[in-house]
Amino acid sequence: MKLDYNEHPHRRYNILTGEWVLVSPHRTKRPWQGKQEKIPETKRPKYDPTCYLCPGNTRAGGEQTPKYESVYSFTNDFSALLADTPNILEEDGLLKAQGETGICKVVCFSPDHSLTLPLMEQKAIADVVALWQKEYSELGAKQNIRHVQIFENKGAMMGCSNPHPHGQIWAQYSIPQEVERKTKMQRAYFEKNDSSLLGDYLKQELDKDERILFQNEHFVALVPFWAVWPYEAMIAPKKQLQNIAALSKEQALAFAEAIKVVTTKFDNLFEVSFPYSSGIHQSPTDNDYPEWHFHMSFYPPLLRSATVKKFMVGYEMFGNPQRDITAEQAAKKLKGLSNTHYSLK
Amino acid sequence: MKLDYNEHPHRRYNILTGEWVLVSPHRTKRPWQGKQEKIPETKRPKYDPTCYLCPGNTRAGGEQTPKYESVYSFTNDFSALLADTPNILEEDGLLKAQGETGICKVVCFSPDHSLTLPLMEQKAIADVVALWQKEYSELGAKQNIRHVQIFENKGAMMGCSNPHPHGQIWAQYSIPQEVERKTKMQRAYFEKNDSSLLGDYLKQELDKDERILFQNEHFVALVPFWAVWPYEAMIAPKKQLQNIAALSKEQALAFAEAIKVVTTKFDNLFEVSFPYSSGIHQSPTDNDYPEWHFHMSFYPPLLRSATVKKFMVGYEMFGNPQRDITAEQAAKKLKGLSNTHYSLK
Ligand SMILES: O=P(O)(O)O[C@H]1O[C@H](CO)[C@@H](O)[C@H](O)[C@H]1O
Ligand SMILES: O=P(O)(O)O[C@H]1O[C@H](CO)[C@@H](O)[C@H](O)[C@H]1O
Repeated sequence: MKLDYNEHPHRRYNILTGEWVLVSPHRTKRPWQGKQEKIPETKRPKYDPTCYLCPGNTRAGGEQTPKYESVYSFTNDFSALLADTPNILEEDGLLKAQGETGICKVVCFSPDHSLTLPLMEQKAIADVVALWQKEYSELGAKQNIRHVQIFENKGAMMGCSNPHPHGQIWAQYSIPQEVERKTKMQRAYFEKNDSSLLGDYLKQELDKDERILFQNEHFVALVPFWAVWPYEAMIAPKKQLQNIAALSKEQALAFAEAIKVVTTKFDNLFEVSFPYSSGIHQSPTDNDYPEWHFHMSFYPPLLRSATVKKFMVGYEMFGNPQRDITAEQAAKKLKGLSNTHYSLK
Repeated sequence: MKLDYNEHPHRRYNILTGEWVLVSPHRTKRPWQGKQEKIPETKRPKYDPTCYLCPGNTRAGGEQTPKYESVYSFTNDFSALLADTPNILEEDGLLKAQGETGICKVVCFSPDHSLTLPLMEQKAIADVVALWQKEYSELGAKQNIRHVQIFENKGAMMGCSNPHPHGQIWAQYSIPQEVERKTKMQRAYFEKNDSSLLGDYLKQELDKDERILFQNEHFVALVPFWAVWPYEAMIAPKKQLQNIAALSKEQALAFAEAIKVVTTKFDNLFEVSFPYSSGIHQSPTDNDYPEWHFHMSFYPPLLRSATVKKFMVGYEMFGNPQRDITAEQAAKKLKGLSNTHYSLK
């Protein structure tokens, strides 16, 4: 007997983290009487006088945002991490805590308040990538910084409190656990096979072509076999690169294209500005990590429609993450969608 | 220099999972302009003719819910796990999947549609505990079932689609990863110290009395040192018990009292029916687990008010869980609240 991914509940193994996800393919048949989200406002002015990220406006802390013209980054006025915290380890019986040194930055993607990544030009997204590269290198070079987490929370549903196109960077002394898991798995594979785990996986996926969303010369976008979120997607360079600092200008432009395509498909799925958290996982900055293959992941919560999301609650919190459609079903749907944004048609 | 938990961002170690949480105590000072949740309806009739969990009504699958008088459980009409799935392991290059055998049940806590756990009598909650005990033992004894996860999603914010007081049980072949982590950590400690990790931790907490919410002869309720969710709480027996099946009638009644107190404090915090996911972590059912010390945890999302929750997004998904108030601040607040439900005053 063979497993039928479309019929049998099954678990899938995440080769990058060593974790499992439970897949219940038949489960969206159940009726949904639960929570409906609000459809986000999509029409916004190019400039909002009350937005502290718009050029020339004053921020909560009193500082003024300069009249920037493409991208702009600054230290978060409400940083979760502070540069002057000592990283002392304290143990008291079974209680163990450690001070955390860090820096939190905000990265404005565009001066235009009305935009989002899918609505920006490829060239303008490449400017964002260039700023990420600069921040990764500069923050990573600082004393007591060993890891730089670049991410974006898009949409109110994902806890974003300002619709101005922006992301964040949290740089810190400790290496976060998601990254440690991925280091461990990639290292074990690299030591055994002397090649990149993710690189070999991408080859297998390109070969199968069941979960690929898009590719250009340098990058692949796909729904990973072990995706947790309904329409989770990953963008990775075909050739192993430890981190984004290693990207050439040409590769950065190809990366920008992949970002534009994936986020456009997302918006086209339910014809709504698609909420997600995205993040770049790459090598920590304290060392050479020959096993690391950087990648950007998108975790979008929507499942059934623009108003019904997947809840990662009860079983998912206490047991394993669980998903209701297969990665192949999600990939097929996304792949079939246009690469032109619905609002531009 | 010493760490000041109220000032310094720091990480705390979870002795049960081996994971870390980032604590940013100063962070609630930032203004919140983000998403506001709807305040849940609290006035509900005792009987709702459209609710499929009310006694005598017909369910989506066509079956009739009997006229039960205290508690009632049945197999979920839209189960995520199915009993006849074979648990075959399949590997294809870097893709690894395994069929999952399982059973999903729904547990109605009361025939009264208007109630929630904090509004039920201690005796009635003890009936719920007795049904959990029965299900844990019966499901756990079945072939191909090695783990029984009991949980509740309360409130629309936590993905609950029916306000009738109920919880769920997902029993399955594989041992979920959260449970595996806790087995590993408890086993290592037990083998080294020949005593219960959680038991020793509880002793230390009772001694310090900084995070304790409530205790009776048999149970302790506290905010764990490594709590992730703003008002996360845990209830555990003082004496090590591997699982709930080991509870005497008297202990089960004491457990019910702790549940009533914790959920009442929750409701009293913002004078709202407090959403959460709760779950019981206990020994898997395939073996004797001398290291296991069962406990029930509550993960409530609300942070600032009845309408502003904590978003576990971006950094939390890609790095570590992060929290904005300390466990001590949360414990102090909850401890100070009445054990009588606000609606009964
Ligand atoms: O089974 P329910 O209550 O319809 O569904 C709820 O609980 C499940 C188990 O935690 C989750 O998988 C669902 O996302 C959630 O909406
Ligand atoms: O910093 P923001 O955008 O105000 O806050 C948002 O992102 C943070 C980082 O993922 C989270 O900790 C917050 O819960 C979320 O609301």
